[in-house]
Amino acid sequence: MIFAFGSGLLSIFFALLFYRFVNNKKCGDEKMVEFSKAIQEGSMSYLCRLYRVLVLIASLIGILIFFSLGWQTAAAYLFGCLCSAVAGYFGMFVATRANAKVAWAARQGIGEAFPVGFYSGAVMGLSVVGLALIGMSLVYFIFKDPKVVLGFSFGASLLALLAKAGGGIYTKTADISADLVGKMEENLAEDDPRNPGVIADNVGDNVGDVAGMGADIFDSYIASAVAVMILGFELYHSQIEFVVYPLVLGGVGIIASLLGMIFVRISGNDPKRGLNQGTVATTVIFSFLALLSAIFLGIKPVLGVFLPTLAGLLAGIIIGFTSDRFTDIDRPAVQNTAHAAKTGPAVLILEGFSYGLFSIVPSILGICLALVTAWFTAEYFGIAGTYGVSVAAMGLLSITGMIVSADAYGPIVDNAKGCAQAAKESKETIAVCDRLDAAGNTAKAITKGFTIGAAALTVLALFSAYVQITGVAILDLRNPGVVVGLFLGAMMPPLFSAMLILSVSKNAKVMVIEIRRQFREIPGILEGKVKPDSNKCVDIASKGALKSLIVPGSLSVLVPLFVGFVLGPNSLGGFLAGSIVTGIIFAIFMVNSGGLWDNAKKFIEDGAFGGKGSEAHKAAIVGDTVGDPFKDTAGPSINTLITVMSLTATVFGSLIAKYAIFRL
Amino acid sequence: MIFAFGSGLLSIFFALLFYRFVNNKKCGDEKMVEFSKAIQEGSMSYLCRLYRVLVLIASLIGILIFFSLGWQTAAAYLFGCLCSAVAGYFGMFVATRANAKVAWAARQGIGEAFPVGFYSGAVMGLSVVGLALIGMSLVYFIFKDPKVVLGFSFGASLLALLAKAGGGIYTKTADISADLVGKMEENLAEDDPRNPGVIADNVGDNVGDVAGMGADIFDSYIASAVAVMILGFELYHSQIEFVVYPLVLGGVGIIASLLGMIFVRISGNDPKRGLNQGTVATTVIFSFLALLSAIFLGIKPVLGVFLPTLAGLLAGIIIGFTSDRFTDIDRPAVQNTAHAAKTGPAVLILEGFSYGLFSIVPSILGICLALVTAWFTAEYFGIAGTYGVSVAAMGLLSITGMIVSADAYGPIVDNAKGCAQAAKESKETIAVCDRLDAAGNTAKAITKGFTIGAAALTVLALFSAYVQITGVAILDLRNPGVVVGLFLGAMMPPLFSAMLILSVSKNAKVMVIEIRRQFREIPGILEGKVKPDSNKCVDIASKGALKSLIVPGSLSVLVPLFVGFVLGPNSLGGFLAGSIVTGIIFAIFMVNSGGLWDNAKKFIEDGAFGGKGSEAHKAAIVGDTVGDPFKDTAGPSINTLITVMSLTATVFGSLIAKYAIFRL
Repeated sequence: MIFAFGSGLLSIFFALLFYRFVNNKKCGDEKMVEFSKAIQEGSMSYLCRLYRVLVLIASLIGILIFFSLGWQTAAAYLFGCLCSAVAGYFGMFVATRANAKVAWAARQGIGEAFPVGFYSGAVMGLSVVGLALIGMSLVYFIFKDPKVVLGFSFGASLLALLAKAGGGIYTKTADISADLVGKMEENLAEDDPRNPGVIADNVGDNVGDVAGMGADIFDSYIASAVAVMILGFELYHSQIEFVVYPLVLGGVGIIASLLGMIFVRISGNDPKRGLNQGTVATTVIFSFLALLSAIFLGIKPVLGVFLPTLAGLLAGIIIGFTSDRFTDIDRPAVQNTAHAAKTGPAVLILEGFSYGLFSIVPSILGICLALVTAWFTAEYFGIAGTYGVSVAAMGLLSITGMIVSADAYGPIVDNAKGCAQAAKESKETIAVCDRLDAAGNTAKAITKGFTIGAAALTVLALFSAYVQITGVAILDLRNPGVVVGLFLGAMMPPLFSAMLILSVSKNAKVMVIEIRRQFREIPGILEGKVKPDSNKCVDIASKGALKSLIVPGSLSVLVPLFVGFVLGPNSLGGFLAGSIVTGIIFAIFMVNSGGLWDNAKKFIEDGAFGGKGSEAHKAAIVGDTVGDPFKDTAGPSINTLITVMSLTATVFGSLIAKYAIFRL
Repeated sequence: MIFAFGSGLLSIFFALLFYRFVNNKKCGDEKMVEFSKAIQEGSMSYLCRLYRVLVLIASLIGILIFFSLGWQTAAAYLFGCLCSAVAGYFGMFVATRANAKVAWAARQGIGEAFPVGFYSGAVMGLSVVGLALIGMSLVYFIFKDPKVVLGFSFGASLLALLAKAGGGIYTKTADISADLVGKMEENLAEDDPRNPGVIADNVGDNVGDVAGMGADIFDSYIASAVAVMILGFELYHSQIEFVVYPLVLGGVGIIASLLGMIFVRISGNDPKRGLNQGTVATTVIFSFLALLSAIFLGIKPVLGVFLPTLAGLLAGIIIGFTSDRFTDIDRPAVQNTAHAAKTGPAVLILEGFSYGLFSIVPSILGICLALVTAWFTAEYFGIAGTYGVSVAAMGLLSITGMIVSADAYGPIVDNAKGCAQAAKESKETIAVCDRLDAAGNTAKAITKGFTIGAAALTVLALFSAYVQITGVAILDLRNPGVVVGLFLGAMMPPLFSAMLILSVSKNAKVMVIEIRRQFREIPGILEGKVKPDSNKCVDIASKGALKSLIVPGSLSVLVPLFVGFVLGPNSLGGFLAGSIVTGIIFAIFMVNSGGLWDNAKKFIEDGAFGGKGSEAHKAAIVGDTVGDPFKDTAGPSINTLITVMSLTATVFGSLIAKYAIFRL
């Protein structure tokens, strides 16, 4: 545990080191600084507002926890909220400052700009895992009870859900509105500073992708570690090594990530290869270190925990590979969909929708394979299957440090492109930014697959923890209570998606009207003589996103509590199972359909089927706009939804087992 | 049982009577007859081709059944295929002849035309239930074993799946292509005879909606009856009344439907009210007769089966009401979506998608309510809960005679409109047809909700039958084998949907090219001087649909067999549960989203947001086209898919229990 705590500190130390490296870089010229400042202010003002709402919600639930589960859990819960908030704040602080620096460095070529972008992302990646490990170790060290650590995890997840969903609504409201009016009606380029929605759009990249995604992985990471700790505690009471094993894995993962980062080097012109090298190196080093740590901890038999760890990594690879296959611009799925654009937007949407549904097949097979392998290899070596599955989840998530670093790189270089365009940089500089950005998109697609796989295994692990805590004897599908729970749980991810998507389209309608108004009423705006009133748009996006959060956020806690306390622990068990199943299906389908439409548009923009401005291009833009909230709002929020619901069930599990009204 | 057999004969007798009534009506003038003939020929040629493919598939599976389950089941299975084929053939025979008669009668006003349309539909409705009851009674009478009747049901379902999916692909291929080129590019009206795709489109209405939907309800009807028989047989071995109760309910349902039809009268100008009166009357009469028959049969306690019957009807009403609420043109869901058309097609699609997802909530709550009510009222009166649930399914399906009659009415009057337009009838006549058609659309929406609810309860009943037959002791969600099955089953409905939708878009691409070619290469086609080559389009739709059937059709039988024989009966149990859950969610969502987009378009065509030809209208057409295969191809086929998979599991259940390789 000291090792875990130490690794956490090490991680934070390197994060600060990288921060100093980035901070010493030049900020760019005046225009860049101005653009970057606007994004900083917009992001921070949103984050402050968000946190104000969160303090309210978090305290309410904190009081509930205090009175039902005692002060220890309540304190751990609040500490979890705090850590999650700090990780998000810190990442965004760096990311919004790094964009202009990357743009400026891009003047000197890609070799100079790439490390600035990557190390800024690494600040986020390392602080996420560092804070998580330090937090968990501290809470466990103080209370010596994994159930209290569960409170910590619940706090982190709740905050992550609100950050992710809020950021997702924000970013797509701004993106869709800026595109619909700016690109479609006024024929402006992406990121044209005359467009009043552009600042909001760039702010959205930061609040949605940096803060949101960071919080999302932060919460899965903690939840999977806690699930292992609880199962270890309940099943192997006397063997402390089974309880602390996930913390050690996390520490080992940090070391592997730091070593892996040495391999992130740009060779030639291809930043994508650099990022991939880092991920592969981290995975290999981690596998080796995981084996060593199991031996060192004295877990017997070693293979009983090591093979499940590998199974988890395998699932991550399969799902990432699938995302890539279905959304890569050089593959048939994207190109067939782009071809359909010739017949109009309707057929394009139908094809992208279908391919998105197809993409769930390999991902689900991957998860099933990991589940069965982890379970049976563990059982084969005499270790409980449920423990094996939870170790698989932790195995997948241990390389989080590297994954989040590569992911946070994406929005930073995306923003850098915006800066360069705002400052009217030379074509070469913008081309460098473009190349950095393309690599970011691939990393983003892989990360989304990774987070879904991680959430799936985490929630399966939490499911076992729930069963342990409530002491449910069997969850029999022949029992109508379990079946009703299954239906209700399965209903939640689609319902949640519908609410988020509808929020985006409602807010976008408001913002479209505002942007049209500005173009109409502010004289000289289109000539670039007068600056647009960007703050209005930032304001609409913020308010809209925060208001839209309340209902889905509350439902994610209240519905499982209702099912548990009214219908009983059996129904709640079915509920969790149902939510996992449709949650994974909807998350994968939405993320991949969205990514596919995005790239089908890019494929046409690269010159296929008439290129930019053709009818096919217009059709592809419709597809891309439909896909935006799929891939950046609803899809990625579902992971966090199912984690929060599982944690709610697990945290309140012992109370539900005691006080449920009916027991179907 | 004699009563059931007699009711079946009575049903067929009335079907023939109605057929004579319709047949005696005048056929209309030459142009109408010509149009109607073209549809007849197209439909029959498709049906013949379809049946040729089916004979092949059916015999292959028949041989498999013969060698694994014996000649009795194989014979019953083939008889089931035959009955299903005959019901489809007969319904379509009448429907394709009735369209011109309705159009002709429309000259004399709506009061004359409505009964022609309705009684033509009733021929279909009554022959479906009549054949089903006669078939089941005969098979049970000869073999005295409900498991053999299961073979009959399997045959009927397999045929229904292929008819429904094939018809669905056919109808939407033709519809989308005819609209994309005719309406969008050449500005022709709907059903303009100059469009080469119009005949194929009208043929599609018949093969998709009449033959397909009829076969679909036919199969649910039989499957739910068989589930009750099996559970009655296994649970109450000595009490024959529990085994024959579903047959009696079916017979009572026919009498209620016949009595209900007396109430189908047109009052004033509103055919919708006439249809609704019939449905309400049938429901009330049926409830009363169901109570009487339970008393008469000597089932004790009567309430133990009567209350579950009512619970089933209740679920049907809730789901039908939901469909209506989310797809009715006067309701906010449709109007908000239409309003979104002002912002372009993308936002319209996002809104319709979200409302479709919302619509699953009340439907799922309805199913859960029916499930819990049926189970616990039965248990309260000392009858097994599983038996109660299966009776609920049969209760819902007993009024099939009336429901299918109202449903088949839809495509008949839709085609009549086409006839009237082809014959260049007066505006008044076309207006009469329009009013008849609008009522048909509502009936169609309600029927779709009804079939989904029916399939849900039926499959839940079959699930219990499966558990009984395989003797699976528990289906524990803590067992990884069950969870893996759950994931795999949940994957099937989305995968199946993706395959069907992709087939539609692929075939539509081919047909669009053909229609464009004809407009370009046939001189005088647009002036109406030369007739288009409709046969080419009919041919493309037929071949495409039949070719696209092979993979999804085979998977629906092979995947459950694979899961069962390789992973074992536990996994297969989880598989069925998973497929039911996502099957219902996807079916409801797709059917309602599709209906909603359709009506949003109609709302704009009625003059809102700029009316026909406006940008909003164009956006709404995109939504409608996306929704077409949702609501008429994938959505309604999912019901049949989950029924076929459950029947496959149940039919081969005893073999799977014996010979499974692994037993996870």
